[in-house]
Amino acid sequence: MDKSPKFAVLGGGSWATAIVKMLTENLDEIGWYMRSVYAKEHLLNAKHNPNYLSSVEFHTEQLKISNDINEIISEADYLIFAIPSAFLSKELEKINVSLKDKIVFSAIKGIVPETGLIVGEHFHKEYDIPFENIGVITGPCHAEEVALERLSYLTIACADEKKAKLVAKCVSSDYIKTKISDDIIGTEYAAMLKNIYAIAAGIAHGMGYGDNFQSVLMSNAIREMKRFIKRIHRMKRNINNSAYLGDLLVTGYSVFSRNRMFGNMIGKGYTVKSAMMEMNMVAEGYYAAKSARLINEKFKSRNTPIIDAVYEILYNGKEAKKVFKKLTDRLD
Amino acid sequence: MDKSPKFAVLGGGSWATAIVKMLTENLDEIGWYMRSVYAKEHLLNAKHNPNYLSSVEFHTEQLKISNDINEIISEADYLIFAIPSAFLSKELEKINVSLKDKIVFSAIKGIVPETGLIVGEHFHKEYDIPFENIGVITGPCHAEEVALERLSYLTIACADEKKAKLVAKCVSSDYIKTKISDDIIGTEYAAMLKNIYAIAAGIAHGMGYGDNFQSVLMSNAIREMKRFIKRIHRMKRNINNSAYLGDLLVTGYSVFSRNRMFGNMIGKGYTVKSAMMEMNMVAEGYYAAKSARLINEKFKSRNTPIIDAVYEILYNGKEAKKVFKKLTDRLD
Repeated sequence: MDKSPKFAVLGGGSWATAIVKMLTENLDEIGWYMRSVYAKEHLLNAKHNPNYLSSVEFHTEQLKISNDINEIISEADYLIFAIPSAFLSKELEKINVSLKDKIVFSAIKGIVPETGLIVGEHFHKEYDIPFENIGVITGPCHAEEVALERLSYLTIACADEKKAKLVAKCVSSDYIKTKISDDIIGTEYAAMLKNIYAIAAGIAHGMGYGDNFQSVLMSNAIREMKRFIKRIHRMKRNINNSAYLGDLLVTGYSVFSRNRMFGNMIGKGYTVKSAMMEMNMVAEGYYAAKSARLINEKFKSRNTPIIDAVYEILYNGKEAKKVFKKLTDRLD
Repeated sequence: MDKSPKFAVLGGGSWATAIVKMLTENLDEIGWYMRSVYAKEHLLNAKHNPNYLSSVEFHTEQLKISNDINEIISEADYLIFAIPSAFLSKELEKINVSLKDKIVFSAIKGIVPETGLIVGEHFHKEYDIPFENIGVITGPCHAEEVALERLSYLTIACADEKKAKLVAKCVSSDYIKTKISDDIIGTEYAAMLKNIYAIAAGIAHGMGYGDNFQSVLMSNAIREMKRFIKRIHRMKRNINNSAYLGDLLVTGYSVFSRNRMFGNMIGKGYTVKSAMMEMNMVAEGYYAAKSARLINEKFKSRNTPIIDAVYEILYNGKEAKKVFKKLTDRLD
């Protein structure tokens, strides 16, 4: 590349908005695809996203906002996807320009429901993007705190260190510190699994378990996460790094996490369906639990009692109280 | 021993009261030493501790309560010390009966200020108690949740597995699950270090750092704790077990932790002295920070940026804002 690469963010939600904000600290021009015509118009006129992180004011001359995903993709070298995993496939279907030669970073924490794959694997298998052109941007990071410019740390993972460093440089600022990693598989699975553990934390809280139990649950969750990821992709990683343990904690302890909230409702006695209807959305950990279960079956592994418990409650209609009673005997 | 061993709890605070409650689920007779004459009388008459966990009603026929530490010690085989470390030396000075042949368990999370030792080492060095007769009872466990009979997990550590199992059996119940361990040094250091990290979490919170940073701080703290303990006592241990990581989390995330509260005041601009006066007590992490620093100096080790930061603020009068600005560059 003889000129500086062009970046585009795909998605109109809070995390997409936070990433655009980070990039505006360093880049003069950022492509931004969002579905909503209204949000685009509002952004161009009022200079903030009407729906998410609306306190953030943008200098719109830095932004090229479009409702046309192909226009945005065709003009960019680095694509940062921040579309909720449940809607990703639908958005990708709209693409008719080539993704060849694009560097694809996923800022999506979850599983693509249609394929049961993490996003990196999905792009690799479905779009033939080589792994050295795939990366991950992961927290621990609530988008809301980025809006407030509260100090946050991101991990940028890519098999190609140069690309990880470039992305890290473009999102770094006074309030964003970055670390690079070569573990694109592990960081993405961690980001997915933590949503299951946040559901578990919510269920426990909803049933009246306290802080003592929550700390034991998290301590068991990180050990379970380590075993799970190791089975899928064995490499030297410190599971206590921020991208794994930090990400688990920021979600598992957050009262704002949608996954924890979803679990909390189930713990309080809502059925899975009514909890989803009440929240008017599907928590990402819901798909993650199914996908993790399928992976467990593939590897014939059964040493994931927390994932199993959440799966039994969400998919097999088992009573949360009974399932957790059994689970508590398996924790230590 | 041809008869079942007799247990005594030493201390009148909330954690001592919680441990007595646990023992009453299994034992017919428990010795209980407390300093306060008023608390003793109130317990015998009104059947609850007037100052701590006062919702817990005791069957006083199970209890032998005394203000005479020697009376209680001479009648017991297992002594469970739950006296705040700052007052331990003073209480131990009162003892004029032999501690030979006593099994001493520490439920104290901290450093004995006069000797700079963890409690197990203090008993070993100052009272010649062999390590196989020393044990540790550790959390993650807020006493208040024991009062509410919320499910909690304890780790009982002793080099002599039989003794660990016996104590574990005596404190176990519907709401207390136990795990045994042979790591009396590591579990006690973890319990001490977590108070320093809770102070750090409080300082950060007081200065306006958010949840994203808190999760990064905890993720760095557990890695720092692992390095620190490994240097003192190298053995196979999983730092993510509940006794280490769980204990760190239950304190570091608790808004009720005195250590976190103390740190929070300092983060908000109080001087160390005025924070102590305002709280009308010395947070245990205050002593722990000094002791950890001395240990670091002894081992010529410097890879403990969080402990160092807390020490600089508490003992060298450094400004929290500046120290944390530097600290954030060392975390990842």
